[in-house]
Amino acid sequence: MKINCDMGESFGIWKMGSDEQVMPYLDMANIACGMHASDPTVMLNTVRLAKQHQVSVGAHPGYADLQGFGRRQIAMSQDELSALFIYQVGALAAICQGESVSLDYVKPHGALYNTMMKNDEVFITLVEAMSKVAPSLPLVVMAVPNHEKYQALAADYGIQLWFEAFVDRAYDQDGRLVPRTVPGSSYHELNQIRRQARQMIEERSVTTLDGQVIPVHADTLCIHGDGPLALPTAQLLRDLLPPSNPYGGAL
Amino acid sequence: MKINCDMGESFGIWKMGSDEQVMPYLDMANIACGMHASDPTVMLNTVRLAKQHQVSVGAHPGYADLQGFGRRQIAMSQDELSALFIYQVGALAAICQGESVSLDYVKPHGALYNTMMKNDEVFITLVEAMSKVAPSLPLVVMAVPNHEKYQALAADYGIQLWFEAFVDRAYDQDGRLVPRTVPGSSYHELNQIRRQARQMIEERSVTTLDGQVIPVHADTLCIHGDGPLALPTAQLLRDLLPPSNPYGGAL
Amino acid sequence: MKINCDMGESFGIWKMGSDEQVMPYLDMANIACGMHASDPTVMLNTVRLAKQHQVSVGAHPGYADLQGFGRRQIAMSQDELSALFIYQVGALAAICQGESVSLDYVKPHGALYNTMMKNDEVFITLVEAMSKVAPSLPLVVMAVPNHEKYQALAADYGIQLWFEAFVDRAYDQDGRLVPRTVPGSSYHELNQIRRQARQMIEERSVTTLDGQVIPVHADTLCIHGDGPLALPTAQLLRDLLPPSNPYGGAL
Amino acid sequence: MKINCDMGESFGIWKMGSDEQVMPYLDMANIACGMHASDPTVMLNTVRLAKQHQVSVGAHPGYADLQGFGRRQIAMSQDELSALFIYQVGALAAICQGESVSLDYVKPHGALYNTMMKNDEVFITLVEAMSKVAPSLPLVVMAVPNHEKYQALAADYGIQLWFEAFVDRAYDQDGRLVPRTVPGSSYHELNQIRRQARQMIEERSVTTLDGQVIPVHADTLCIHGDGPLALPTAQLLRDLLPPSNPYGGAL
Repeated sequence: MKINCDMGESFGIWKMGSDEQVMPYLDMANIACGMHASDPTVMLNTVRLAKQHQVSVGAHPGYADLQGFGRRQIAMSQDELSALFIYQVGALAAICQGESVSLDYVKPHGALYNTMMKNDEVFITLVEAMSKVAPSLPLVVMAVPNHEKYQALAADYGIQLWFEAFVDRAYDQDGRLVPRTVPGSSYHELNQIRRQARQMIEERSVTTLDGQVIPVHADTLCIHGDGPLALPTAQLLRDLLPPSNPYGGAL
Repeated sequence: MKINCDMGESFGIWKMGSDEQVMPYLDMANIACGMHASDPTVMLNTVRLAKQHQVSVGAHPGYADLQGFGRRQIAMSQDELSALFIYQVGALAAICQGESVSLDYVKPHGALYNTMMKNDEVFITLVEAMSKVAPSLPLVVMAVPNHEKYQALAADYGIQLWFEAFVDRAYDQDGRLVPRTVPGSSYHELNQIRRQARQMIEERSVTTLDGQVIPVHADTLCIHGDGPLALPTAQLLRDLLPPSNPYGGAL
Repeated sequence: MKINCDMGESFGIWKMGSDEQVMPYLDMANIACGMHASDPTVMLNTVRLAKQHQVSVGAHPGYADLQGFGRRQIAMSQDELSALFIYQVGALAAICQGESVSLDYVKPHGALYNTMMKNDEVFITLVEAMSKVAPSLPLVVMAVPNHEKYQALAADYGIQLWFEAFVDRAYDQDGRLVPRTVPGSSYHELNQIRRQARQMIEERSVTTLDGQVIPVHADTLCIHGDGPLALPTAQLLRDLLPPSNPYGGAL
Repeated sequence: MKINCDMGESFGIWKMGSDEQVMPYLDMANIACGMHASDPTVMLNTVRLAKQHQVSVGAHPGYADLQGFGRRQIAMSQDELSALFIYQVGALAAICQGESVSLDYVKPHGALYNTMMKNDEVFITLVEAMSKVAPSLPLVVMAVPNHEKYQALAADYGIQLWFEAFVDRAYDQDGRLVPRTVPGSSYHELNQIRRQARQMIEERSVTTLDGQVIPVHADTLCIHGDGPLALPTAQLLRDLLPPSNPYGGAL
């Protein structure tokens, strides 16, 4: 199981996260592509930082909404969404190429990620887009109970999925994240995070907010790159998941 | 000699140029990449239009300045400029790949084009960037008397240059374009355009605004895609330069 | 009854509409404020054009979405929306002040207009915002059968409403516009537009797409500033509604 | 002498500075207006914060360049610059009005500030713009040896100037700031800052980088709102300059 984290979410003069500190503990860096965050210079610097720490680079495309940080769904036709997605993947791929770094996967950001998991048409638009421009790269999606549905949809386009689980967020009994507005939905204690991470790694399960144990089959665990717990979370996960194959390998 | 024209300079709901009408007469479509004009949807539609008419696609990157249409120089470090340039080339390359179209060349836009011709450091930044992400693609630059200098600089990075001349703009005795603010700098008569085009094609020379004849060795002639003369200029050039090798070939 | 039209929807180098031609026939120019369209220069030039033709100026604020032209709803809190709205009204008011022109009314644009008519909380947010920064200016809203509800909501904040009707769009039996996706929803014949305009002016009613006659009490008729019918529509409305009090007066 | 500081320079989700901590120590908050930084929501929150601490609010307009934070000069015509400036002042004025806060002054930002001090045509464009939309508000400019020139230019348009000096930057013998690229140009020791502040307040002079003492007649001292020294600098200045007339008064 690999550790992934959103990286490169600064923009212009505005800094976000503590990429320099967190990067050394990651396997996979999801790098923003300039539409919801970042700009070409931030992308370049983040690719270089990932390379320096031998962390695998993934594209992290989002809706074109800097002010909303890609967290607001934007109505788009399939062609529009496909073009927006391909644009961002291609831009980061070129910046990687310029640094002799491989682009290893794609993980949509924010509202695009959520919409993809809720709306099969959007999901299909994204895997179809990947089949055209990055057919050998996996798409990172949420580890959900009905993961077979997504695998079948992706398989139609020859796209491999990597499933991710969240170590610092509470789950409901349907295996979905409890919305942030609900008390207890986000963990602010390292012990709580460590417990959930361990359970995900060792038991392949999670205990929901209302106390049920449900299975979670994750290929990778996601941590959030901002906030005071980013670094200690990365460190505790690294302790639980020693890097076996540090750079760019298959899961 | 090939005919090139800036295409895909619409943005969102705003239309620019008459791409549908002009495209059939071109050899090379310089497609804007979303920073000074265009957006992913416009790029997609323009690549499709070029494909339909078997016109070669080139990336047309510019400064990130929609409001100024990339016509204002923006101070940037070499790293910043390189990242901005690579970002745009990569974005369009991916959109091309999604449509099974090859990206055939790169031509900088507006103030970036002018700065490249004036500032060797900027020129080198661009050819170095190309050597990293598009080493086999030619860079379109202005046909100038001291073209050997540019060829030598580009050769250091293994980049081929294509030189372009302008059929609807007056030249000064140094072989540079007369600034638009000078009366007579832009041609508004088709006869004047035809005469200059013929001279460039047949004599490999141009008559300057003050009446001297100077050599111009151009691989391609540029027309402007907007304005009432765009279509007739494209048509008269097509008459003068019948397409021998219509799609994506070397010059 | 006054004639209003969206004006100043160009952006940077991109032109939209034929403001110079249409402006002379208007009573009220709804001027975009830089978020969904326009920029400070376009705003300045449009205010000057309105002044030249003694046309009343209104602010036409929209969602901050150039690429979507303000036609996509964007989720915002009340505080966010209020600030966005006030920002735009204030910006245009200052540009008006710089030209010694009064700002006479406010009419929201696109998705913001539609959302305001559908969502009372959004409507209240806007009238409350107006009560803070433009308490004496009327808000232009759609003439709907349940107009008393909107008048009551606006009266709570001391805001006057002006109701507008559309001469080139079909209505349904609920007094709402038939969506553009429905055949027959938009009129492309001047005769059809003239007939509906006359009925609105003389009978204070409209004949719905399915043939019913329903009342429409409008203070102003809206025309669309773009498209081939913009100018003739403005002209035919001007013929039907001679200007009695051409500049900046109350309805 | 008053203490001024740039405030409200966050953008969307990106935070800049420590406004909540620094605001209580200020007399004047220069609030960004959405073009080089900030957005309507940040502006609203910053105006509320200033009001809470009875700090005078000034507009801090800049070039429209989020990515460059308004630190890159952008070529503009006088009309374009005037419109851009008025747009921003008006937008903040309206947000102030919505919170029943007065707008008390204007201070240009970054490259616009520098250009204004170097280029008389730009300076005149700004004071002329102020004469149209904010004739009673002072314009904050740099305290320079040839301040009479600026006062004469501003007086032609009836605009009052407030001169500011910098407590954490080294001066050259011409009374200009030593460029940031020169070693010693920025102070990183509180003692150094305190010494320069004291000299400016008590002696009305400054000791230049090469050891000369030159006069500095400042109405207000500027501190930088970001960086580790922002808060202690604000505190030491507050100690040196007890607030006599804390809210919105004349200097």
